[in-house]
Amino acid sequence: MLLHEEHFRAVENLVSEWARCIDENRVEDICTLLHPEGRYRVQSRFNADRGLPHALMDAHSPAQLRDRIKSMRLANIYEPQHYRHIVSGVQIVGGDPRALQVKSNFLVVRTLDLDGDMKLFAAGQCDDVVDAGGPEPLFRSRHFRLDSRVVETLMVIPL
Amino acid sequence: MLLHEEHFRAVENLVSEWARCIDENRVEDICTLLHPEGRYRVQSRFNADRGLPHALMDAHSPAQLRDRIKSMRLANIYEPQHYRHIVSGVQIVGGDPRALQVKSNFLVVRTLDLDGDMKLFAAGQCDDVVDAGGPEPLFRSRHFRLDSRVVETLMVIPL
Amino acid sequence: MLLHEEHFRAVENLVSEWARCIDENRVEDICTLLHPEGRYRVQSRFNADRGLPHALMDAHSPAQLRDRIKSMRLANIYEPQHYRHIVSGVQIVGGDPRALQVKSNFLVVRTLDLDGDMKLFAAGQCDDVVDAGGPEPLFRSRHFRLDSRVVETLMVIPL
Repeated sequence: MLLHEEHFRAVENLVSEWARCIDENRVEDICTLLHPEGRYRVQSRFNADRGLPHALMDAHSPAQLRDRIKSMRLANIYEPQHYRHIVSGVQIVGGDPRALQVKSNFLVVRTLDLDGDMKLFAAGQCDDVVDAGGPEPLFRSRHFRLDSRVVETLMVIPL
Repeated sequence: MLLHEEHFRAVENLVSEWARCIDENRVEDICTLLHPEGRYRVQSRFNADRGLPHALMDAHSPAQLRDRIKSMRLANIYEPQHYRHIVSGVQIVGGDPRALQVKSNFLVVRTLDLDGDMKLFAAGQCDDVVDAGGPEPLFRSRHFRLDSRVVETLMVIPL
Repeated sequence: MLLHEEHFRAVENLVSEWARCIDENRVEDICTLLHPEGRYRVQSRFNADRGLPHALMDAHSPAQLRDRIKSMRLANIYEPQHYRHIVSGVQIVGGDPRALQVKSNFLVVRTLDLDGDMKLFAAGQCDDVVDAGGPEPLFRSRHFRLDSRVVETLMVIPL
């Protein structure tokens, strides 16, 4: 466990940094936090628990994720909005420094720009794998598991 | 304060672990985090502030708590649902290693399985006593103080 | 970064302490956490991003802030209510020990005393400057940036 304690702050900071990239509307920057062979997924808890493949977002590399964000910026039509991530309970539950298993709880509040409407948009758990053995910690895998099967309208911005 | 700093991570981890047991539907596991002579209570802030005894849940031992959870699994009829805990501001505010006084803020989002409805279910403060002097840290006392006097429908699952 | 690591716990504790003063209805105590020449502001993200001066609250010293709280206690007529702060992602992103740049995400749930109604009241980011070089860490500046431009009814209690 000493091993993990050593990496705890770096992992916590990586998780916070991801959230802040999105919340500060520097969404593209999350791609730099994903390992070149990393995977990013957003799935309902229902599907994840059953091993069902359907996902709201599923990128198999930072390049795919970047592509998704580009379409958000250029092609998608959606009401101007932003997210606010609240993350808690970051824990390293196993693994080794090149592949730490990390869990955390999250809640995302979405605010619509025009009318200021604010709502609970998503809540759930992240099951991540973090490589803390390189010069900078990176996600080898980020898996957002949404508690609810219902996502209001479209999910355009990654979580 | 050095004393407390030494125990901070263990305490924070204990608090996170409790939340995760419930959120991952391993509710029974919280009983292993409560001291054999420990007490678990959920009360409104209104009652707690006035020293009134009424509580939504009040278990005087892990065995009583286990009993409550068993009735939840076997006897209670309720709409399938799960919680998501978001905890922040964990602080050790006094005490000694065998009885650290710990405060934290919490928020619980409840999601109904069937229609995916998600809502703010509970928010408030935990006033806990943690024994960090044994082989594993344990709660000597967990006291959830709910900001609201009104709990929507029934509280079946412990917080 | 070692420098910052050294101060991290003190900064995190300062942020938690501010929240707890308000949530425990010891609102006056936040004045003791603000540097004598410190500034406290609550602004919409919209205004803050554009450098617009309008703020919901703007105190240029602990004395001004104390004055605001006094009027809350004595003069303002409002429905009895209290806040619950949930803070996450505290990060030291730059600066030196006398002026650390600190970011965090916050969410405030407001509960009305009478009917127990609980709602998402505010969410956003804090951009703070913390002096961690003195005997006790203090805020040189607290800047709450609200995601929404719309604040339900009045904001009476400081965030």
